Amino acid sequence: MKAAIIGGGVIGGGWAARFLLNGWDVDVFDPDPEAARKLDAVLENARRSLPMLYEQGLPDEGRLRLVPTVAEAVTGADYVQESVPERLVLKHKVLAAVEAAAPDVPIGSSTSGFKPSELRTGMVNPGRLMVAHPFNPVYLLPLVELVWVGGDPGVAKAVQDMLTLVGMRPLVVRAEIDAHLADRFLEAVWREALWLIKDDIATTEEIDEAIRLGFGLRWAQMGLFETYRVAGGEGGMTHFVEQFGPALAWPWTKLMDVPELTPELAKKIGDQSDAQSGSLSIRELEGLRDRNLVAILRALKGEGSGAGQVLAAHDATLARPMAQALPLITVQRVIPSDWTDYNGHMNESRYGQVFSDAADAVMVHVGAGPDYIANGLSYFTVETSIKYLVETHAGEAVRVGTKVLIGEGKKLKLAHEMQRALDGVVLATCEQFLIHVSLESRSSCLPSASVQTAVEALAAAHK
Amino acid sequence: MKAAIIGGGVIGGGWAARFLLNGWDVDVFDPDPEAARKLDAVLENARRSLPMLYEQGLPDEGRLRLVPTVAEAVTGADYVQESVPERLVLKHKVLAAVEAAAPDVPIGSSTSGFKPSELRTGMVNPGRLMVAHPFNPVYLLPLVELVWVGGDPGVAKAVQDMLTLVGMRPLVVRAEIDAHLADRFLEAVWREALWLIKDDIATTEEIDEAIRLGFGLRWAQMGLFETYRVAGGEGGMTHFVEQFGPALAWPWTKLMDVPELTPELAKKIGDQSDAQSGSLSIRELEGLRDRNLVAILRALKGEGSGAGQVLAAHDATLARPMAQALPLITVQRVIPSDWTDYNGHMNESRYGQVFSDAADAVMVHVGAGPDYIANGLSYFTVETSIKYLVETHAGEAVRVGTKVLIGEGKKLKLAHEMQRALDGVVLATCEQFLIHVSLESRSSCLPSASVQTAVEALAAAHK
Repeated sequence: MKAAIIGGGVIGGGWAARFLLNGWDVDVFDPDPEAARKLDAVLENARRSLPMLYEQGLPDEGRLRLVPTVAEAVTGADYVQESVPERLVLKHKVLAAVEAAAPDVPIGSSTSGFKPSELRTGMVNPGRLMVAHPFNPVYLLPLVELVWVGGDPGVAKAVQDMLTLVGMRPLVVRAEIDAHLADRFLEAVWREALWLIKDDIATTEEIDEAIRLGFGLRWAQMGLFETYRVAGGEGGMTHFVEQFGPALAWPWTKLMDVPELTPELAKKIGDQSDAQSGSLSIRELEGLRDRNLVAILRALKGEGSGAGQVLAAHDATLARPMAQALPLITVQRVIPSDWTDYNGHMNESRYGQVFSDAADAVMVHVGAGPDYIANGLSYFTVETSIKYLVETHAGEAVRVGTKVLIGEGKKLKLAHEMQRALDGVVLATCEQFLIHVSLESRSSCLPSASVQTAVEALAAAHK
Repeated sequence: MKAAIIGGGVIGGGWAARFLLNGWDVDVFDPDPEAARKLDAVLENARRSLPMLYEQGLPDEGRLRLVPTVAEAVTGADYVQESVPERLVLKHKVLAAVEAAAPDVPIGSSTSGFKPSELRTGMVNPGRLMVAHPFNPVYLLPLVELVWVGGDPGVAKAVQDMLTLVGMRPLVVRAEIDAHLADRFLEAVWREALWLIKDDIATTEEIDEAIRLGFGLRWAQMGLFETYRVAGGEGGMTHFVEQFGPALAWPWTKLMDVPELTPELAKKIGDQSDAQSGSLSIRELEGLRDRNLVAILRALKGEGSGAGQVLAAHDATLARPMAQALPLITVQRVIPSDWTDYNGHMNESRYGQVFSDAADAVMVHVGAGPDYIANGLSYFTVETSIKYLVETHAGEAVRVGTKVLIGEGKKLKLAHEMQRALDGVVLATCEQFLIHVSLESRSSCLPSASVQTAVEALAAAHK
């Protein structure tokens, strides 16, 4: 598959990274003489962070080219994503160039403000143009607002599928309105924030604290309505809204004026923001943001909730059946940044997690995976011994080779070896002794006949 | 210390839980005949979730009483928190009753809308009344907006200190305005959301997805301004705001009308919310919310960012020097919900984490803690053997007893035993072999003389 990215800034670069790291070939067109440097900066962040979200390796990277014309970028593309600056004239010009070279390819626009009908003016084949509005950083955040109303449903479905395959969650916005959905909320918050700063009620830092220590933590997982559904309790949401409504009405009747964004106000915001975060460079802040996002997304993935659910579903699509090799390759993954400790290397307990995942892979391979467990049978680990040989760091790709040392009756003994994927250096070894149990009685029992046969075959092959 | 909680609903109950679980005695006054049941429900959630945030045990719970009068609740209290319904007449009545029984105690009001000056009308000693506006669930979210303008700075300082000690982050709001800070934003978002639903642009579920899969993930960690500072790049925040301003101005000029909250609109919201989450009871949603918050807060704690920084600072205040006992009690903690796996019990790798933490505690005890590591020396674990004896579940309190088996030269060998705190049942044992290293050369070397002496003394005592 090939994606054409028109406009290679922070947003376009983020799109390029998401497609590339999911195995697509990517051609980028951007006339900015600094385009290569800017694209590299985004890709460096993405290559570090995106693979950390998954419990297995992403596909091999596609081929990336920065090309000199729109025509070259879109020729042979399966999908075109437009992310040029928010000027309608410019967007129309770019879309005409895309149409001239690739008359049938689906086109998504990253516009945060324009409606599809505005973008489609003058197009020969307007039905394949839709808004596909992502959120920064595009390589980590799953949301993409898809506004295709008035367009071709078949093309929209194809785009939904493609975006889902690169780990995004296309949210179909059923009507075209200015700023789609999410940015309406962002703008509402901006309006309030501008007033608070203009009137010296609060600084940028105080506003950020008010958000991230309170409702921001709720919004990362449940959004607005589910949060209040819970807060409202047993009376139900209708009752809650009726109760809550009058209180809502008081302040909002006073907050309808729009502050004028004068140069003075812009400078005041800039100065306050410098005082808040000026000690950190933008690169350092990006690094902090991405480490936090990796940690939050992985936390939600563990609970199967919100963006974590999207991530878990994508992770599942990446799973490949394990080859019948010697040793079995049971784990292939990147070490995430939330697995390191104050020594700057992977915490010893996370070696245990890698080997625990390796044992899980063996379980799936012999037919004792989630379905088997749902039927009340499983293997429990009784004893683990780990030798730590070489330090392991965040961002490193590793693989685990596993041999079955013993596989008879209730007993299963595994030997794992974790290697650095880059050079095959052995990082740690592990012996793990497991017993087959009934999840109902919580005591040991024989596995099913088919699992027993599979385990015995592996033990014989690995002897 | 004793807190008096006036009003024991979702918010008051959350306050009661936070004080109680941080070792305060708590007297609650609430005339609702259902008060005991409602309070129990909040406490049950809090007892399960709050201890999971920490790497060590919280203080012993204080004593909780539901008392029949305001006077009884506030007598002898160090702090009074008022959380009665948002009616000014009722608040004034309650404050008068508080003053009659406790003339000098600091009083915080949970009001989300009223200004301190409105609440103080008619008070004898108004200077000790301030707004202390928390966020639901109060026992997990650290933010509390403190509006004491016009009040007594000494009292405000004392309240700030008390709230910090129970793990909160008091954000001083420097001017009194309707709805303080955070609720201004929440109300702005509510306004937009009501329009979107009224006009059939989006459902409650679509709005929640638009928030939690995109900017909600950013707001949990950086808030509004730091997020855009990063997005704006090297040009700086002033430049970004100047660029961004015109785009902001387009839609906001159209979104200034306020939708009327008719019964029809309330019902529409209720019906959509039922369709979205009706399959889950409020208790189930609360459980989901709290598990997600535990996971997100712990993720941010690992990065030392936002609410995670508040949490880490509070965790540090809970640390107590380890007693010179046999065995050393190296870990006392509750198993968090994000440590369990599909079998419903603690993942095997987390046993490794508990024992890794136990080794860290020994390091601190012998003088090889963070300062020692910052000076370039540390112990690295070379080998770990764990025997898993009994299943461990989320919410269970555990303790680890540790003996030093070998402590000579570069070598340190530890034997750990993890017990269930409730009944002393041994859950797992571990032997751990560590080597002292130079962090510069990454190779083994002798510890400092004082660390070596301490390690040898432990080995001799544990022989």
